[in-house]
Amino acid sequence: MTPARPIPTAPKVVALSGGVGGARFLDGLARVVPPASLTAIVNTGDDFVHLGLAVAPDLDTVMYTLAGLGDAARGWGLAGETWSAMDMVRRYGGPDWFSLGDRDLATHLVRSAALAEGETLTAVTSRLCRALGIACRVLPMCDAPRRTMIEAVEGGALPFQQWFVARRAEPAVRAVRFEGATAPSAAVVAAIDACDVVLVGPSNPYVSIDPIVTLDGVRAALARRPVIAVSPIVGGHAIKGPLATMIPELTGEPASAAAIARHYGDLLAGLVVERGDEAHPGLGALPVHATSTIMASPDDRTRLAREALAFVRAVAR
Amino acid sequence: MTPARPIPTAPKVVALSGGVGGARFLDGLARVVPPASLTAIVNTGDDFVHLGLAVAPDLDTVMYTLAGLGDAARGWGLAGETWSAMDMVRRYGGPDWFSLGDRDLATHLVRSAALAEGETLTAVTSRLCRALGIACRVLPMCDAPRRTMIEAVEGGALPFQQWFVARRAEPAVRAVRFEGATAPSAAVVAAIDACDVVLVGPSNPYVSIDPIVTLDGVRAALARRPVIAVSPIVGGHAIKGPLATMIPELTGEPASAAAIARHYGDLLAGLVVERGDEAHPGLGALPVHATSTIMASPDDRTRLAREALAFVRAVAR
Repeated sequence: MTPARPIPTAPKVVALSGGVGGARFLDGLARVVPPASLTAIVNTGDDFVHLGLAVAPDLDTVMYTLAGLGDAARGWGLAGETWSAMDMVRRYGGPDWFSLGDRDLATHLVRSAALAEGETLTAVTSRLCRALGIACRVLPMCDAPRRTMIEAVEGGALPFQQWFVARRAEPAVRAVRFEGATAPSAAVVAAIDACDVVLVGPSNPYVSIDPIVTLDGVRAALARRPVIAVSPIVGGHAIKGPLATMIPELTGEPASAAAIARHYGDLLAGLVVERGDEAHPGLGALPVHATSTIMASPDDRTRLAREALAFVRAVAR
Repeated sequence: MTPARPIPTAPKVVALSGGVGGARFLDGLARVVPPASLTAIVNTGDDFVHLGLAVAPDLDTVMYTLAGLGDAARGWGLAGETWSAMDMVRRYGGPDWFSLGDRDLATHLVRSAALAEGETLTAVTSRLCRALGIACRVLPMCDAPRRTMIEAVEGGALPFQQWFVARRAEPAVRAVRFEGATAPSAAVVAAIDACDVVLVGPSNPYVSIDPIVTLDGVRAALARRPVIAVSPIVGGHAIKGPLATMIPELTGEPASAAAIARHYGDLLAGLVVERGDEAHPGLGALPVHATSTIMASPDDRTRLAREALAFVRAVAR
């Protein structure tokens, strides 16, 4: 839904993000939008406790990517990471299905210690980001645990990381649901209310964006702003992750930009799609901007961010 | 106090230990005594929670030393250790006064996760030791926290690691006391009751051995066995740690093997001292074995262990 009020020349931007794709899109936005005008709201539905540590995969990917510390090839974790601690955990017969790098461990240690002392996830995330030199705001979607559960066709419900990493996203998905907190953080509500436009990164709608959008009042708040999304589908494929198989499993239709548009429904004022994907009849009358959405280089990220900002301005008029 | 019963040819040995010196003595014993006949009872008074992790410095030093993984030059931690996690903790502005190596972190992570799930410190220690190929038994002195507190002349009471590491053992010591649990573990009581001889390693009596000996019933149980100690004093100096200054601060007398003997009192059936230290008049009628007590090489450790075993056999007759 598009609001009546005009979009200022330098709009305040809220971007919703999951992990890798969303983080790269945020990195582009951070190169284009002044830091004080950019707030990232990041999925925490994948968060889990591992070896007693509070691990927040999407927050970490966003932080490391925005700090320029991410491992570009692997797509997650820190560049130049070492794995001595995990080698030793393995030697002890400890759980090694989720790899924690040595430097990455510091993030979880500092975060877990802070949470144990009563600091909110929002506050400790802000502190970690500042320490890494990140100038824009990075907000976890909520402070209390909200867990994405994958209902598999066989074997019942699994927490997301168990399904995604330990089971290699192999069990077919019947449904996705969320357990735990239903309230967004106060900072999330305030950021949406204060923004001029909302950009949804090329993240998995079911497991990365829905956890945010289904928080109490968030969809209604977003509906008062012009929202565009970047489609995470490229020619029927997902760049990364299990999305391309989840769409047919969950909807019965093939993976396509149209499936993304249909999922977000009337939330969207427009959709940025990969060039060639705009021809799908299922997109109907939805305004579409077709471009190259693959963000291999920093230049790609900057260009896509600029185009997305121009597009939301155009569709919001 | 020496018991009436004869010591068998292959005695069951209990050894009390703190960190570095005690660990090296245990390593010598482990090369001489069959694994099933050797039980180490290790001080946990230095244990503390750091970055949310249960750190047990003396247990770790004992484990790493017995596993042949210890850093011989540094005296603590693991050989070939890396420090990536701590570098990142520092970058986050986290506490860096206590260095946790990357591989060492795995020990604390696995231990902390086990304790959080309700496993006892005794059980998880046994599991970690098995994983590292340690064949003898290593028992923490107790399962519940018992904290060694240093009463400084100025500035009040400090937990041991705060005093020793963060304050570099500089504040003069007025008294040492223990807070928390007073009961030894059932395994500790059973091990002492089942043993034939007790050897006290060359550890600091005040902060490494007293935490064990002052547990409910332990001194009485030890008194029913022949007990000898290895003096941690060499010609008026301590090989490692703050002992040489603690003795005059706590007793008003100079550091000497005699001060060690006086501290342990009637617990001892004999004392192994550095050659030259046996002449101290304060040793009185206590049986003394003078030898080289510095354990630079594995051969030194083996020799000292053999001599200590022969000595306890001799004084127990």
